Amino acid sequence: MKTLEWSDNTLKLIDQTKLPHQLRLVECRTCDEVAAAIKTMQVRGAPAIGVAAAYGFALGALTSRAETVDQLLSDLARAADTLRQTRPTAVNLFWALQRVSSMARSAGGSVPEVVQAVLAEAHAMAREDEDRNRRMGRFGAARIQDGDNVLTHCNAGALATVDYGTALGVIRAAHEQGKRIHVYVDETRPLLQGARLTAWELRREGIPATLISDNMAGYLMSLGKVNLAVVGADRVVANGDVANKIGTYSVAVLAKENGIPFYVAAPTSTIDLSLVSGAEIPIEERSAREVLYVGDYRIAPEDMPVVNPAFDVTPHRYITAIITEVGVVWPPFGPGLAAAVAASQAAPQKALSGDT
Amino acid sequence: MKTLEWSDNTLKLIDQTKLPHQLRLVECRTCDEVAAAIKTMQVRGAPAIGVAAAYGFALGALTSRAETVDQLLSDLARAADTLRQTRPTAVNLFWALQRVSSMARSAGGSVPEVVQAVLAEAHAMAREDEDRNRRMGRFGAARIQDGDNVLTHCNAGALATVDYGTALGVIRAAHEQGKRIHVYVDETRPLLQGARLTAWELRREGIPATLISDNMAGYLMSLGKVNLAVVGADRVVANGDVANKIGTYSVAVLAKENGIPFYVAAPTSTIDLSLVSGAEIPIEERSAREVLYVGDYRIAPEDMPVVNPAFDVTPHRYITAIITEVGVVWPPFGPGLAAAVAASQAAPQKALSGDT
Repeated sequence: MKTLEWSDNTLKLIDQTKLPHQLRLVECRTCDEVAAAIKTMQVRGAPAIGVAAAYGFALGALTSRAETVDQLLSDLARAADTLRQTRPTAVNLFWALQRVSSMARSAGGSVPEVVQAVLAEAHAMAREDEDRNRRMGRFGAARIQDGDNVLTHCNAGALATVDYGTALGVIRAAHEQGKRIHVYVDETRPLLQGARLTAWELRREGIPATLISDNMAGYLMSLGKVNLAVVGADRVVANGDVANKIGTYSVAVLAKENGIPFYVAAPTSTIDLSLVSGAEIPIEERSAREVLYVGDYRIAPEDMPVVNPAFDVTPHRYITAIITEVGVVWPPFGPGLAAAVAASQAAPQKALSGDT
Repeated sequence: MKTLEWSDNTLKLIDQTKLPHQLRLVECRTCDEVAAAIKTMQVRGAPAIGVAAAYGFALGALTSRAETVDQLLSDLARAADTLRQTRPTAVNLFWALQRVSSMARSAGGSVPEVVQAVLAEAHAMAREDEDRNRRMGRFGAARIQDGDNVLTHCNAGALATVDYGTALGVIRAAHEQGKRIHVYVDETRPLLQGARLTAWELRREGIPATLISDNMAGYLMSLGKVNLAVVGADRVVANGDVANKIGTYSVAVLAKENGIPFYVAAPTSTIDLSLVSGAEIPIEERSAREVLYVGDYRIAPEDMPVVNPAFDVTPHRYITAIITEVGVVWPPFGPGLAAAVAASQAAPQKALSGDT
């Protein structure tokens, strides 16, 4: 079972707000339903958001009553707007909408032909996502030694993608290669994607893992119990600065302080060369309730003020390397990231020269 | 209402496991009941644990059926053993038991006279605790400027002491001096003492404060939103290394990385000159349930392995200064801490020379 699947003109998503208590599906038959699923984080994780948005756009096409291609394109522009406004930080959303929009405009033919071209593009993106993650996993697994203790933050797993995962894909690949590894999982407050999702995935895969509160990671590093950290990303900009789940910056600083390599695993669809530095990345502020409540349990006085940035920015100086599906990018990141994006556009199957 | 009060031969404690939902008292009439209250963290915070243990010892004396002083001392040795085994990290527990034990041995007189001497010593320790915190608060408040944003971790407030608090005492004193300050409160997983207790205290006092997840602190620092950090301590050793609530180490590293002063507020009863470095401090490992559940809400797969160190050790190189009731100790901490302990023993009311 994949994070998202398409059948009977319906996008079926694992409802990630219900895990690990229940494994339930959400069925989306309209663009608005997909937008709602993204907004409420029933589907989350930059690559999964991207593919879900592509299918949401395809549903916009399928449910359109347009009789001309012009009418269809106008309906689709509205669909893209709706989807674009769900979440601001993960660039994969905008990348995916750009790609399906461009397919709609260039497909040509009749209304049904354009609709089918859009849907085919969404299918292609779903397939590519999984394939990219497996390639990224192999590149990343080379950075992991037998016996390593690996720390990860949030969920950059199968659930954050169509399947296999980015940071967890790297961990999965190392495990598949027979390396005996153990994973420390940051619970990742406030929404606990580490405790709820990453722990669930690792238990199912039989990869040895231990759950910790976020504030334990630094101490374990100081005791020499962590050999490397690997996380996903919501946006990687031209200089190598990375937006990822809140708390990533702290993990990176603590890793550097303790001489521990800190890797970011991100497909090239997460790279945004249009932004020069991380300071330009819009950071989503989410509801106070996410901090004040865990499940239905209120953890603080009801009227307590809260801030809730969903992401933070890790400056590139804390990042050892960025693992992509075309190879590992080392500092200085500027030229390497540009080359990775170019390589992925030219020949997605080819690796960057000089890397394994 | 104080964290702990004595009346009718009963120790009355605010049940801190019930806050902020309910303000309820626990009544302890025996040494074993006090030991249970410490172990289950109905009373917690190094100074409060120390005074509670002293009263637990006094209850051991009051409930003893000894007919001779020798029998009483033997009952009290057992009482001290019971209390000593509740929690390993906060040195105030051992310091307090040492002090009341020594009073029992030296008091002289009849059995009732020894019992009364022990109880009087516990009362003295309770009064001194509050007095010390107010003096510490004044020394610490001098480090806080008008307009500062202060970050704190866990609860080193009135609830961690008899009254007024250590780190929160410093914040309280600055607020009482009319400085317009704002506090960022780390929620402090797993037991959420920041969200449940510090937030509750600050709301009651009307001190502006914002609750954050622990993993947000670093990011806020990187944005320039934090001017200084101040925390309490469970044990300060001879070289200035500090054991405090898990997550303190991370706050200290992140503060240093961002050029932010990091202060520890601790009475001299928290200083343990018998240990050379923080590596020697025993760190309590608590139950997995504390990490796996928030209230009754399970956050991870039921069988997920967990580690749960209740404290961590912050090496002295990350600490800007240690605020005590006899003055502020600056690096190199060795001689300063020894002088602070000597000053507190010689004349508890006097400040270290050369500090304000």
